[in-house]
Amino acid sequence: MSRITNPTAKRLSEYLLILERLSAQGTRTLSSRELADLYGNTASQVRQDIFSLPRGGESDPYGYDVDKLGLSIRHALGMDALRSVAVVGCGRLGTTLALHVPLEDYGMKLAAAFDVHPDIVGTRLKDVHVEHSVHIPRVCRQEQIELAALSTPAEEAQKIADALVHGGVKGILNFTRVQLRLPDSVVAENRQIVCGFIQLAHKVSDLNNDASADALSDRDMPS
Amino acid sequence: MSRITNPTAKRLSEYLLILERLSAQGTRTLSSRELADLYGNTASQVRQDIFSLPRGGESDPYGYDVDKLGLSIRHALGMDALRSVAVVGCGRLGTTLALHVPLEDYGMKLAAAFDVHPDIVGTRLKDVHVEHSVHIPRVCRQEQIELAALSTPAEEAQKIADALVHGGVKGILNFTRVQLRLPDSVVAENRQIVCGFIQLAHKVSDLNNDASADALSDRDMPS
Repeated sequence: MSRITNPTAKRLSEYLLILERLSAQGTRTLSSRELADLYGNTASQVRQDIFSLPRGGESDPYGYDVDKLGLSIRHALGMDALRSVAVVGCGRLGTTLALHVPLEDYGMKLAAAFDVHPDIVGTRLKDVHVEHSVHIPRVCRQEQIELAALSTPAEEAQKIADALVHGGVKGILNFTRVQLRLPDSVVAENRQIVCGFIQLAHKVSDLNNDASADALSDRDMPS
Repeated sequence: MSRITNPTAKRLSEYLLILERLSAQGTRTLSSRELADLYGNTASQVRQDIFSLPRGGESDPYGYDVDKLGLSIRHALGMDALRSVAVVGCGRLGTTLALHVPLEDYGMKLAAAFDVHPDIVGTRLKDVHVEHSVHIPRVCRQEQIELAALSTPAEEAQKIADALVHGGVKGILNFTRVQLRLPDSVVAENRQIVCGFIQLAHKVSDLNNDASADALSDRDMPS
């Protein structure tokens, strides 16, 4: 069984989106250099990532076949299976997740949604009725939910996570600010949106520091 | 000038959210072990990350001071400045970003919002009027926008990114599926939400593989 580390899986999933856009635009082959330019890393990193795929991503003199490489990534990341997904917390963010994220294109489907608010329980998101969160364990078992997105208020997050675990859910995409305590048999990916802004701000400060360091060294250097 | 790598900055930003919750609950000190347990990594990784802070995150026999450590992280990640943020694409996701992400708590503030849809242009998000995207370069310069969140349809993403660059924006948090082409003086962080689901699914398959490998080796081993 091939092992792909999480940082590699992250890059592969992002390469996949690029490959799919290229394919839709009619591009048939591309080189590791071209993919690296589009992604913003190096050709050697791209080659190393592709080499980690079970089929090694064969290339020919024209480069990688865009569609075949996409399929290899899908296969390697386990998208051949169809996984059922639940969204818990159907406010603005949860509704966005349920309605606008193209899960179906990546081996997943929305199969349940939960909330506690009387105005939201009973409404429809795609083909799914929003159920009350007290029913999480039963509905998750019934619908064989494997993955859940958690977009509730922070105060409820741990309690809801416990209910999801109880319902047999194996992975939680956590959008709340809470660090969840989970058994070893369940994994989480944290996606606190504010952290994205913080990391971006840090990158920008870094850039500014580089620029002022450059300016400083320009001044010091005889020209 | 201290240099904090991007993976470290990511972890530090997530530690900060944990520290702030602990502080709100009245916790005054914690050990690297406790922080690692809450975060889901190792005490040695936590110590290494904290050691990368300019002030080195002094600890005493009782562990780290929760509030002081939080302040060191804020300082190190450049949250002392106040950065102006724009949201471009005020559909469901953009509205969530504008209204529900606590930018103010992390040295940022929403200062502009843009869309092209006549029903959305002119509406209000917090203290900000949504302007038409044709005005991006002018408004961004005027409001000294440093960071922008991009949540437009994929087809418009590159054109909007070009306009943001033209308006002097230094960092783009990209929620679209497009890999942006940007000059070296501008950075992007990609946050395609579907990639979070894909990475989560990969972690779950990995877990299942581990479990079946364990079951297999149990069978092979004399007990």
